[in-house]
Amino acid sequence: MARPVITLTTDFGQADGYVGTMKGVILGICPEATLVDIAHDLCPQAVRQAAYVLHTAAPYFPPGTVHLVVVDPGVGSRRRPIVVQTARALYVAPDNGVLSLALAHDPPHLAIHLTETAQASATFHGRDIFAPAAAHLACGVDPRDLGEPLPVSELITLPGLYPEPQPDGSWRGTILHVDRFGNLITNIQYPMTNIQYPMTNDQISVLAGGERIVGLKRTFSDVAVGELVAYVGSSGYLEIAVREGSAAARLGMAVGDPVCVEGLP
Amino acid sequence: MARPVITLTTDFGQADGYVGTMKGVILGICPEATLVDIAHDLCPQAVRQAAYVLHTAAPYFPPGTVHLVVVDPGVGSRRRPIVVQTARALYVAPDNGVLSLALAHDPPHLAIHLTETAQASATFHGRDIFAPAAAHLACGVDPRDLGEPLPVSELITLPGLYPEPQPDGSWRGTILHVDRFGNLITNIQYPMTNIQYPMTNDQISVLAGGERIVGLKRTFSDVAVGELVAYVGSSGYLEIAVREGSAAARLGMAVGDPVCVEGLP
Amino acid sequence: MARPVITLTTDFGQADGYVGTMKGVILGICPEATLVDIAHDLCPQAVRQAAYVLHTAAPYFPPGTVHLVVVDPGVGSRRRPIVVQTARALYVAPDNGVLSLALAHDPPHLAIHLTETAQASATFHGRDIFAPAAAHLACGVDPRDLGEPLPVSELITLPGLYPEPQPDGSWRGTILHVDRFGNLITNIQYPMTNIQYPMTNDQISVLAGGERIVGLKRTFSDVAVGELVAYVGSSGYLEIAVREGSAAARLGMAVGDPVCVEGLP
Repeated sequence: MARPVITLTTDFGQADGYVGTMKGVILGICPEATLVDIAHDLCPQAVRQAAYVLHTAAPYFPPGTVHLVVVDPGVGSRRRPIVVQTARALYVAPDNGVLSLALAHDPPHLAIHLTETAQASATFHGRDIFAPAAAHLACGVDPRDLGEPLPVSELITLPGLYPEPQPDGSWRGTILHVDRFGNLITNIQYPMTNIQYPMTNDQISVLAGGERIVGLKRTFSDVAVGELVAYVGSSGYLEIAVREGSAAARLGMAVGDPVCVEGLP
Repeated sequence: MARPVITLTTDFGQADGYVGTMKGVILGICPEATLVDIAHDLCPQAVRQAAYVLHTAAPYFPPGTVHLVVVDPGVGSRRRPIVVQTARALYVAPDNGVLSLALAHDPPHLAIHLTETAQASATFHGRDIFAPAAAHLACGVDPRDLGEPLPVSELITLPGLYPEPQPDGSWRGTILHVDRFGNLITNIQYPMTNIQYPMTNDQISVLAGGERIVGLKRTFSDVAVGELVAYVGSSGYLEIAVREGSAAARLGMAVGDPVCVEGLP
Repeated sequence: MARPVITLTTDFGQADGYVGTMKGVILGICPEATLVDIAHDLCPQAVRQAAYVLHTAAPYFPPGTVHLVVVDPGVGSRRRPIVVQTARALYVAPDNGVLSLALAHDPPHLAIHLTETAQASATFHGRDIFAPAAAHLACGVDPRDLGEPLPVSELITLPGLYPEPQPDGSWRGTILHVDRFGNLITNIQYPMTNIQYPMTNDQISVLAGGERIVGLKRTFSDVAVGELVAYVGSSGYLEIAVREGSAAARLGMAVGDPVCVEGLP
């Protein structure tokens, strides 16, 4: 049988040993687990960025993977630690919306409020609650044995994840994520709009940071080095890039900034 | 049987391939090892920071784990490469004090000066001495076969790791580590002081960076967003934080800076 | 049988989930693979730096290791995705010169143009082409089943990788890599020159950044703290360092800057 896979997505960085500590806890409970880092260098407490990164990576993991997510500005407060089961995967996370995008594409059929936990510190639930739960699930424990069922409709969802149609037929969205290349990933996607991968179109204009980018290209290399380009990215979102450069720097844009799209079919 | 676990703690960063090279060496000797990164983005040559990070993570790993630590400003000089065995774990490191805190909580019963090494480069002992030793230990080689016994009392210990009582009954300590959230972790802990996890107390004052923080709280979320808070952290040390902010930035403090605590019971 | 090893070298960083996504794809195809990161925090699109880092790490991995390299400024353009087989290893990469140094030390006997790929996005070939190919190879698929043979002589090679002899008997080289300690790694090496590890020599002078460093030492600790030192590094290249400091900062030097060596035997 394939070894169980546990992914880890946190804002803990790589300099403090927090992620290593969680892995030690997991291997003590489920030694055969294969551990895979999705991201740890997320901006501290950036729930929205974590939600984006998780949902772009999760669909590519084998069925039955356990996704452990600890981006948790509310640690120690009353937000619930949860397990969510879908047809493809199990998710272990704080109930703060960080699973919103993943679950929008992989609907939950069971949610559990993690209550069967050992004594936990007030500040490091990753070590004391989330990592043990993920390890037990990877080794076959039933999620129902870890806490109380919770209606999936009660799970917290982040606001503002989707673009909005405007009276003039254009769409207004926002920057969801800026990657390390300075590419701007917007929240403009299918099925809210007709943006789909793959797609090129000469009629569409993207307005961002005071500039108008005319046409959707297939990829960076369809424009000259240093030029702005809009295209549908590999995760299905409208993206803005500068070939061999940084669109974030060029346009002075960051997460949350507005983007408009005109001429969508 | 569970696969052996080897952790890696270095100041090599993630951009130069040094850690990957060490892992290649390990997998050539002990292919069944599970490799876990504790931290690599430590400040270059920060032995004290590495000592702190290692000792917070190590206790959470399964018994028999091999902890490989290469933070080694003295590489190529006469400092000894060592193996240290405790009841819980094996440590492979330069004898420069980097194990001080881990061994204070997990006392050594055997120390070996690594002398049975192949020809080593002068600058990359991680690859040529420490990684092979860790791999052999993980695969069951006796530490005594890797070198000469050394009295554990001769192992190097870092100075200034513990807080000092003052004539007026207060304690004076220092900042041991600043984590990526800007939380300040002090060296004030049990059993030198009565600081213990969990603990809240209205009588205790913490003086740091020109500010007085009154009372020990349970966690960040016991104060308003943006407020300073002192609490006993998940590793048992007195910590100073700003809720959803950076205490290091707010107080202008860094590793080594002084902290005072008054009113300890 | 030992589990197959796949290494990953990219410029994807650790904050966007791109590397995690590739690992998910790999584990879906070849669940028994051991995955090892060589480097992901390379400067974006720095093919030369990636070529250097890969070739210093690759020789230390077990025979049969699959090295997956995605530093790919030309993604989406006509550059070929390739598999290269040597006596020691398999490499999967874009054909943009990133394998130049590795293959100079581990000559290829087979090159395959990856053509048997599923539908790929235009911007994330790491996920859609390179990761699946690496996973299939690790699980025993013949490289010939993944595409069309290509003469190894047609593989792209980076220019300027080697030092040049000057009329006065000196050698002129360049900085190939700056590591996180600020050590400057030059392209001056054996067998082009007589620089070899281990080697010390009082007659050799290194001219760099307006300073003359007299003599080759064995290692950092052969000079005082804060002093410049030239030595043959653990990978066989001439390096310049400042003991417990940064030579890059001290000399104001970066990748591509010139270095001269006089008095080589």
